[in-house]
Amino acid sequence: MFDGLREVAQQLRADRAVRQLLSTCKRLRSERGEANSLVIGHDVVKRLQRLDDAQRLLFFLALARDFSPNPAEVLTAAQAYAAQPGARTLDALTRAAEPPRQELFRRINRAQGGTAAIVALRRELLGLLKAHPELQAVEADLLHLLSSWFNAGFLQMEQVSWRSSAELLEKIIQHEAVHAIEGWGDLRRRLQPDRRCFAFFHPQLPGEPLIFVEVALLAEMPAAIGALIDPKTEPLAPDRYRVAAFYSISNCQPGLRGVSLGNFLIKRVAQQLQRELPRVRKFCTLSPIPGFAGWLSRIQQAPASLDGDAAKRFAEQLQLLRSADAAQLKERDALVSAAPKLRDALTGLCAVYLTHESPADHGDPVARFHLDNGARLERINWAADLSAKGLRQSHGLMVNYLYDLEQVEAQHEKFVNGEVAFSRAVGAHL
Amino acid sequence: MFDGLREVAQQLRADRAVRQLLSTCKRLRSERGEANSLVIGHDVVKRLQRLDDAQRLLFFLALARDFSPNPAEVLTAAQAYAAQPGARTLDALTRAAEPPRQELFRRINRAQGGTAAIVALRRELLGLLKAHPELQAVEADLLHLLSSWFNAGFLQMEQVSWRSSAELLEKIIQHEAVHAIEGWGDLRRRLQPDRRCFAFFHPQLPGEPLIFVEVALLAEMPAAIGALIDPKTEPLAPDRYRVAAFYSISNCQPGLRGVSLGNFLIKRVAQQLQRELPRVRKFCTLSPIPGFAGWLSRIQQAPASLDGDAAKRFAEQLQLLRSADAAQLKERDALVSAAPKLRDALTGLCAVYLTHESPADHGDPVARFHLDNGARLERINWAADLSAKGLRQSHGLMVNYLYDLEQVEAQHEKFVNGEVAFSRAVGAHL
Amino acid sequence: MFDGLREVAQQLRADRAVRQLLSTCKRLRSERGEANSLVIGHDVVKRLQRLDDAQRLLFFLALARDFSPNPAEVLTAAQAYAAQPGARTLDALTRAAEPPRQELFRRINRAQGGTAAIVALRRELLGLLKAHPELQAVEADLLHLLSSWFNAGFLQMEQVSWRSSAELLEKIIQHEAVHAIEGWGDLRRRLQPDRRCFAFFHPQLPGEPLIFVEVALLAEMPAAIGALIDPKTEPLAPDRYRVAAFYSISNCQPGLRGVSLGNFLIKRVAQQLQRELPRVRKFCTLSPIPGFAGWLSRIQQAPASLDGDAAKRFAEQLQLLRSADAAQLKERDALVSAAPKLRDALTGLCAVYLTHESPADHGDPVARFHLDNGARLERINWAADLSAKGLRQSHGLMVNYLYDLEQVEAQHEKFVNGEVAFSRAVGAHL
Amino acid sequence: MFDGLREVAQQLRADRAVRQLLSTCKRLRSERGEANSLVIGHDVVKRLQRLDDAQRLLFFLALARDFSPNPAEVLTAAQAYAAQPGARTLDALTRAAEPPRQELFRRINRAQGGTAAIVALRRELLGLLKAHPELQAVEADLLHLLSSWFNAGFLQMEQVSWRSSAELLEKIIQHEAVHAIEGWGDLRRRLQPDRRCFAFFHPQLPGEPLIFVEVALLAEMPAAIGALIDPKTEPLAPDRYRVAAFYSISNCQPGLRGVSLGNFLIKRVAQQLQRELPRVRKFCTLSPIPGFAGWLSRIQQAPASLDGDAAKRFAEQLQLLRSADAAQLKERDALVSAAPKLRDALTGLCAVYLTHESPADHGDPVARFHLDNGARLERINWAADLSAKGLRQSHGLMVNYLYDLEQVEAQHEKFVNGEVAFSRAVGAHL
Repeated sequence: MFDGLREVAQQLRADRAVRQLLSTCKRLRSERGEANSLVIGHDVVKRLQRLDDAQRLLFFLALARDFSPNPAEVLTAAQAYAAQPGARTLDALTRAAEPPRQELFRRINRAQGGTAAIVALRRELLGLLKAHPELQAVEADLLHLLSSWFNAGFLQMEQVSWRSSAELLEKIIQHEAVHAIEGWGDLRRRLQPDRRCFAFFHPQLPGEPLIFVEVALLAEMPAAIGALIDPKTEPLAPDRYRVAAFYSISNCQPGLRGVSLGNFLIKRVAQQLQRELPRVRKFCTLSPIPGFAGWLSRIQQAPASLDGDAAKRFAEQLQLLRSADAAQLKERDALVSAAPKLRDALTGLCAVYLTHESPADHGDPVARFHLDNGARLERINWAADLSAKGLRQSHGLMVNYLYDLEQVEAQHEKFVNGEVAFSRAVGAHL
Repeated sequence: MFDGLREVAQQLRADRAVRQLLSTCKRLRSERGEANSLVIGHDVVKRLQRLDDAQRLLFFLALARDFSPNPAEVLTAAQAYAAQPGARTLDALTRAAEPPRQELFRRINRAQGGTAAIVALRRELLGLLKAHPELQAVEADLLHLLSSWFNAGFLQMEQVSWRSSAELLEKIIQHEAVHAIEGWGDLRRRLQPDRRCFAFFHPQLPGEPLIFVEVALLAEMPAAIGALIDPKTEPLAPDRYRVAAFYSISNCQPGLRGVSLGNFLIKRVAQQLQRELPRVRKFCTLSPIPGFAGWLSRIQQAPASLDGDAAKRFAEQLQLLRSADAAQLKERDALVSAAPKLRDALTGLCAVYLTHESPADHGDPVARFHLDNGARLERINWAADLSAKGLRQSHGLMVNYLYDLEQVEAQHEKFVNGEVAFSRAVGAHL
Repeated sequence: MFDGLREVAQQLRADRAVRQLLSTCKRLRSERGEANSLVIGHDVVKRLQRLDDAQRLLFFLALARDFSPNPAEVLTAAQAYAAQPGARTLDALTRAAEPPRQELFRRINRAQGGTAAIVALRRELLGLLKAHPELQAVEADLLHLLSSWFNAGFLQMEQVSWRSSAELLEKIIQHEAVHAIEGWGDLRRRLQPDRRCFAFFHPQLPGEPLIFVEVALLAEMPAAIGALIDPKTEPLAPDRYRVAAFYSISNCQPGLRGVSLGNFLIKRVAQQLQRELPRVRKFCTLSPIPGFAGWLSRIQQAPASLDGDAAKRFAEQLQLLRSADAAQLKERDALVSAAPKLRDALTGLCAVYLTHESPADHGDPVARFHLDNGARLERINWAADLSAKGLRQSHGLMVNYLYDLEQVEAQHEKFVNGEVAFSRAVGAHL
Repeated sequence: MFDGLREVAQQLRADRAVRQLLSTCKRLRSERGEANSLVIGHDVVKRLQRLDDAQRLLFFLALARDFSPNPAEVLTAAQAYAAQPGARTLDALTRAAEPPRQELFRRINRAQGGTAAIVALRRELLGLLKAHPELQAVEADLLHLLSSWFNAGFLQMEQVSWRSSAELLEKIIQHEAVHAIEGWGDLRRRLQPDRRCFAFFHPQLPGEPLIFVEVALLAEMPAAIGALIDPKTEPLAPDRYRVAAFYSISNCQPGLRGVSLGNFLIKRVAQQLQRELPRVRKFCTLSPIPGFAGWLSRIQQAPASLDGDAAKRFAEQLQLLRSADAAQLKERDALVSAAPKLRDALTGLCAVYLTHESPADHGDPVARFHLDNGARLERINWAADLSAKGLRQSHGLMVNYLYDLEQVEAQHEKFVNGEVAFSRAVGAHL
């Protein structure tokens, strides 16, 4: 029996709704042919919608226990395959090793409302994993299947504009996660000709944006977020567009976490803008550094990868910073009027943070996302985000990542091997 | 090593194009993250298009040999899972047991033109299986993935009409497999108000019909195909529609053979027509019996499932038929003027063929398709298809299958258990 | 010379821009064939956009003076036609009598942006008529042409919903003239399933609503406006819809004043709702009575059309009202707590106002609109609009007009002859 | 009474259907307000459809007699206007002078099916004019109104392609008037990437092409029609497109004869192709010369506009031609093998025909159309159309007209004044 799931049977005896749901699932799973599976699948979808939190947890636990491969059968099949590798033994092995819940999910997916039901299911599951690590096996199957169904080939990119439906725009307002949109007037500015917004959609979830990115068309690479999202600024004249700056990217479907969407979206948007606006040559971001302040408060010594001089310089800068009033550096006025020395120290420490920590799992998540996409660390901007969140997360610093479409492949390759691409300007801080 | 594939290495040494393709495939397969996979995937798509037949075979053989699970690793993982079943050991097992080519195909699928490339690949592979059974393992993976990607939830049904594009209609003419369409005039009649045509499309193959069905709206269940496809008949007045007869269903993508499409299409069409035309109450087919004449020429004695009297009657009818001039029964004039006794004998034998042989794998494929969908054998029609093909395949007999949407679930269930649903009229022939 | 336009020549000498515009207009007007007319027409459109108010007035005056028929030529042509009526003389007459500016406007209309330019022109002209009655001849030509171009056959009706573009919805918010929409939240309620909105569009003014109507789907004929436009009410369940109430109709294009749009819109909406919702049987309005309070304050005696008893009753009610504190009747609290006698008197006087004054030009404009459309005066509602505007205009009274599609023709006919259709309920007040 | 229409009254007494139709027309015409006019208008549309030829003629005659302006009233109004020109007298004049049938037609146009009914009406009327010149007055009104309703601003241009509906393509096949399309295979070639087709549509006649033009994208200006319409030719590679040649333009609506459509279509197509294909710099036609052979057989002497030497040369060429076997010049083989001298003579005479006769009403209609559009006579092509029709009409000659969008305005201007624009190459033949 799957470890840690002994008490499930007992709970199931007490809950008729989950028991019936599981029995319907088994029927759906074992249905030969597909004649009835749409009807049974739709029944499963409706039963899932009626579960409360406790029942849903019980359902997941039962999926982990009862819809996993049979260990003895797998072992037998693996032995046969090892003895004589071939199409026949492999077929038997594949059947034995695939968790039966995968086929269950596939059949639910085919039914009306099935895709949405599975995305919703995973959203709930993700919230339970910490307390119930034994559900990780179910999560692995869901992520595997959703990655297949929501692959880039099946996604449709659409521009979101003031001509889009109010229904869609309402969702954009609600899901903007980076720089909140304060109502329709605020949104309207972000959809003027010098601002663009693009979203991915999936044919099975019509009208539901999966992820969207906001772009500013500018004369120069932006050094601060304020002007980009200020609803009172005048639109730039189209003949002055030279830079496309991605200033916000937001996922709309928590149930699709970990499914690669943002990377493809940024590149498709860049390609489309290149075609439409040949004079726009530079594609960059203006990004937050959400992990910087936390790292800075924890760090005790220079990262091991810093060599002699650089390590010494790092220690000095850290010292300078520690002697300053740290709380002050999270206040707008104090920050703006900080001494040049302090400013240099903070920027230098941030350069180290981004170039030396990013390859590691605990590195800054935004940095890791763009660097893994093949972008280059282009410029660190002082006093770039003076909102409460910006001051708290990164002492107001923001960073531009540069997407040079000719370089992204090579730079991604390097990043995978632990090397971070950065500009001379960033190098000067090191 | 995968059995029977020893000589592949040698051939590969001689073919640089396939070697390079495989090396690109390995790179695509192992690419960490997805940053570069669209570009590499598109490279694979282009390389695949340039292969000749011999190279493609070599590629498939290499896929079977080099992209199968490692037997030793699978065995180790299966042992660990058997020793301690849990999320961690299951994860390791799943990774070890899944053929690496599955992830390869998934990544190709994401690239531009990838879906079409994989459908084309499988079309070629299906033609090679007989001579190369060791490729069955590759085929299993392709079918598995295509069934997932082309599941009913992702398919869009559209009506094909005289308002459809000439580009699409040209494909309909070309793919009609049951009753050939002789040019645009012929097609035009089949798109008049009392004839309907519906097709499935997939978002990744825009403009490419996957399968389509042709429907005739009639006052009565049809007893012969001639009038249904005669371009010179007048359209029936809409207030007289009572029966919707599916008279032709054609697959357009050989690379999707075995992916369940027809069943879903028929039921979605029936639902849509029910909504649009509430007075149409009967949904049936007028179907060929492609296996009947062949079976009849081979059969020596009554099927074992026939009991005493019925078996005796069967023997007499078979005797009567054998004494007739068999060749004559494939000629139009002879058939039309056949003696009532002969006619009864042929119809009776056909009733036995359809009711007793259908559940078996060697049963009539069209009968198996509709009965497995949950349809009922409704009526056997004499002199119903007097075309050369109809006379040759089934001595001019055709059959109506009835889709009673209330009954399809239960009847499908029964058929899975070997029981064929039939009407009293058919029962009378037994 | 056209009367009252002698000083135009002098002003023209001083204004080069208008002189050039007029010369371009003459060139456009006299252009033989149409080869160049699109280019010249577009030039005129751009010149028109650059005019300031004084220049535009001058332009209109010049149109009245220089683009009117030549009196001597018309007279000659009319004499010839009178002497020998026939195709040839009629042709000459038609050419002589048609004001040359009509052909000028037609040619402007053909150019890019021409239709919008002419609608804008008329909007400006309407504002000048009072001070410059000599421009009435230009206005007559514009109304004639716009009525032809914006005729019902060329208009497209579209439903406005939460799925419409933000661009369109923003215009709806801005143009709502009857019950103001307070922002997007307010609009959202008016687009829930039990509220509908429909607008007319013209192919030449894409994205520009011409007129729109708002409809509430209700269980009963509404007696007050408050609940209909309250954003906090819950939508009614669709199975309870029985009545469609038109509660607001707003023109969006001042330049199309007098072009018949509202009548067609109401009837097309009623037809569409009838098809979609067969259980909705009653189509009515909930309408303001904008002229009632004003009439009431001016009226001295019963309308002549009232006979003995009715006239006497009228005088008593008027007397009662005059003795009440009139200002009080425009205050919310006072009105709500008014004595039954006062309430009856006010309602009775309103019934007389609507039934006896409507046929006259000075009658209530909303009443005239609906009665002329063939609607019936169905019910007068006490305390139905307690907004400041409602109290001021009509002491809080509102009225339902009933559109019985079977009766509208006959009732329109009667109204044209001075007879107002009303229900028994209304009759009881008389 | 309108001249020549005295016997109409008598006929009307005998025909109840026409009498009722006219009475409905009068009711529609005089309907105050527009409440009922849609219903009555639709009734008129249906009654019109039921008329036979004799009844339709009677209806037209009644329209001429009973729906013309009243001579006495017009005269009075003209006298008042002449005495005191002003807005009021002008308004009275305009009302008196406009034939009442114009308002009748406008109201029919608003009803469902009305626009199509009026276009159909005019098609019939055009066929009756020769025998019934008194109907010219009705025709003038119809042309006036249709020109207003079908003005360029209201027309929508759409590309016709292999992706267009079969319904539309079928109409294109049917209406091609210049170079007949022989079935779907022939059409398919004309819609390959190097052939384009564009049509005008009107919102009131959805799905009905009004006029369409066929364009060939070529490397050079074409000298013969054969290759352009040969279904077996290979499409040209897109990077070689340099010339867009209009090789066929066909009206689809006989009822819109005389409404200017072709001129606008050609220019809009040229503009669109310029945007899409910036390397295409030359826009020309390859056109028939339908009037040449007829003119040649009738001509006795040089046109008066030819001066001394040219007139002499003309006489010699004409002499040479007359001495040749004229019939022979309409035979394919004879023409192809004609002596250089004869060839020069024929081409020279054609150059005179096109340059000297085109400004006159009896000039070649195709030449007049393009020259009036502002095109230039660019090249006369020998043996360019060897079809029976081409040989018969113009001894196989065809001509290229060049549309230089920079020049069309000026050249149109000149043509209006009797001057034909031609190239040096054409000049060399003169």
